Amino acid sequence: MKLVCTQENFKKAISIVDKITAKQITLPILKNILIETKDGRLFFSATNLEIGIIIKIGAKIEREGKIAIPSKLISEFISNLPQEENIEIELNGQILNINCGKYKAKINCLDSEDFPIIPERKGVYQFSIKNDIFKDIINKSLSSVSLNDIRVEFTGVNLSFFDEKIYFASTDSFRLSEYEVGIKENEAYKQIKESTAIIPAETLRELSKILHNSNDNEETVVTIENNQIFFDIGDIKMVSRLINGKYPPYKQIIPNSFKTEILINKGELLQSIKIASVFTKKTDGEINIIIENDKNLVVKSSLQESGENQTDLLIEKTGENQDFVLNPRYLIDGLNVMDGTNIKIMINDSFSPIILKMVNDKGGKTVDNFIYIIMPIRK
Amino acid sequence: MKLVCTQENFKKAISIVDKITAKQITLPILKNILIETKDGRLFFSATNLEIGIIIKIGAKIEREGKIAIPSKLISEFISNLPQEENIEIELNGQILNINCGKYKAKINCLDSEDFPIIPERKGVYQFSIKNDIFKDIINKSLSSVSLNDIRVEFTGVNLSFFDEKIYFASTDSFRLSEYEVGIKENEAYKQIKESTAIIPAETLRELSKILHNSNDNEETVVTIENNQIFFDIGDIKMVSRLINGKYPPYKQIIPNSFKTEILINKGELLQSIKIASVFTKKTDGEINIIIENDKNLVVKSSLQESGENQTDLLIEKTGENQDFVLNPRYLIDGLNVMDGTNIKIMINDSFSPIILKMVNDKGGKTVDNFIYIIMPIRK
Repeated sequence: MKLVCTQENFKKAISIVDKITAKQITLPILKNILIETKDGRLFFSATNLEIGIIIKIGAKIEREGKIAIPSKLISEFISNLPQEENIEIELNGQILNINCGKYKAKINCLDSEDFPIIPERKGVYQFSIKNDIFKDIINKSLSSVSLNDIRVEFTGVNLSFFDEKIYFASTDSFRLSEYEVGIKENEAYKQIKESTAIIPAETLRELSKILHNSNDNEETVVTIENNQIFFDIGDIKMVSRLINGKYPPYKQIIPNSFKTEILINKGELLQSIKIASVFTKKTDGEINIIIENDKNLVVKSSLQESGENQTDLLIEKTGENQDFVLNPRYLIDGLNVMDGTNIKIMINDSFSPIILKMVNDKGGKTVDNFIYIIMPIRK
Repeated sequence: MKLVCTQENFKKAISIVDKITAKQITLPILKNILIETKDGRLFFSATNLEIGIIIKIGAKIEREGKIAIPSKLISEFISNLPQEENIEIELNGQILNINCGKYKAKINCLDSEDFPIIPERKGVYQFSIKNDIFKDIINKSLSSVSLNDIRVEFTGVNLSFFDEKIYFASTDSFRLSEYEVGIKENEAYKQIKESTAIIPAETLRELSKILHNSNDNEETVVTIENNQIFFDIGDIKMVSRLINGKYPPYKQIIPNSFKTEILINKGELLQSIKIASVFTKKTDGEINIIIENDKNLVVKSSLQESGENQTDLLIEKTGENQDFVLNPRYLIDGLNVMDGTNIKIMINDSFSPIILKMVNDKGGKTVDNFIYIIMPIRK
């Protein structure tokens, strides 16, 4: 193996695959990155056996080859090299010689034969999503995913495939969010239509990082095969296992009609909830929301040892008065991912699911493709 | 107690005193901030028994009073209030009522009588230092202070008072720095002339945070009394105990003459040391620096399991060739606090102290008021 590439490209590739290897401590080979020349390009591969990533960069290849290089070492070394220089790489036995201007290093590597094969998709893709929309879906969906793994299906985001539409749902049983997105079906979409798939939250977090460095106007191509999901994001390919499990039939808990609907300034509500959460227990906190008339909403909380607080907010209300108790964290998580100046809150009573929807800043129409649902605390 | 002040001033005061209370867990009263009206101003006091801070802000006082308020609670509450609003405060018994526009809170407080008295200086101050210079002194001095407390005197910065000059020295026995600063003596300076004082590093870290939010062109007034040191920084007063202990007579280890003197680009040297430290053990790492001719310096390191590296840097040299071994961390710590494009390094041999000095970008003169000294590792 002998080649030349830019420090910038090499560093970018390493920084993407490095995130996967960093957490891996059981199998020593997984702390390495496989680099390999193929078709006039340099490929970087890493896997933690749950997620695999392959990225290709441009390189001037003089001699083909492949080798497994220690991820942490190469990452620290490359990131300290000057950005404008070229990197010359030459493999001698299992020692990789790297020259970059006045900097020279010899790195001890491992045999590429020991590196696990990262699966690639065999069939054609089923659908694609524009990168900026995919980022938004992931950001909003992760707001309500479960952080503990008591129920493994809640540690992922559930995708339900219908005609030209996918529903991304996540819940930890206390709150739930659902994002509806129209997609470009490929012909192969019929293979998955009417089915579901649960993607691990960790996979979506890694995908989100990749999308943040990708072109918003391009599309990510998605393929589901053999209980695995494959993403093609430009020159980056990512594969992840899916979660085995049956997602609960959550649609049936979403109410269709409401006794009360209010319009409220999102920023003011968020600020009042943050203040109220100061006067609650840090975990399992409780805040009280009271709607006593058509124009005001009161947020209240108290903690015996600390004191109490109350905020009066202006609202526009239709329907009945309400009085309910919530965990402030669930409300904060939801408000943090909602866009726009105002939001709508729909309520039936103090023990039925409460629904939050975004409102379009232009025209004031309710946005229907994302809903955030919170279960109140029964008093 | 009844008063009105701005959210901005109240928040700023809390954020300064809060840093002291946050770490305190033994005595419950120390988790509180004492607020007190005096001479038409509102005073905030906090102490962890090592460091005490008092800050005053403007307020419209209707009724005098004082009370101890829980630091964490008030800090979280106040920082979430809207910045442009006024805060109305009224004490009823031990409950503090705070109103700020639509936000209202009642906070349970503690009796102010239980709050420890924070000492204030009795005599006149001895000297003053301009704030921007004081920040620079602290930043540079903390680079070489000891992080473990095996020798308590090394956990502080030693001040030696001479005619119109103070020497700030710090060391952990592996490296040492000394900052010489001219000061404005007050008449009382003669009380401390020819003496020394060791200020805890923690005190200087807190002082540095305060100085970063103060006017660079104003001066901090310093007073030493009864084994305590007092700082007046505008409307903020800070007091700290001094460290009991005898600082070693470090001046005698600083060589007066050198066999080799080199001029080198600081940024390039720092980059090469960071790269070299990738190929060393994480603690007690060793890098080799070789000066083989008048124009080149080689930085080398190797680690059996990882590999090796070498960087060639351009220098201007006078004197003998050299070959020595250093812990890269000590060199990085020193280079990180040095100003200017180039630095001078003075060497005698592979087992004598090595000296780093800054070089003035304009004119290329050596800067003599700060030196950073590293002990090489004997091979």
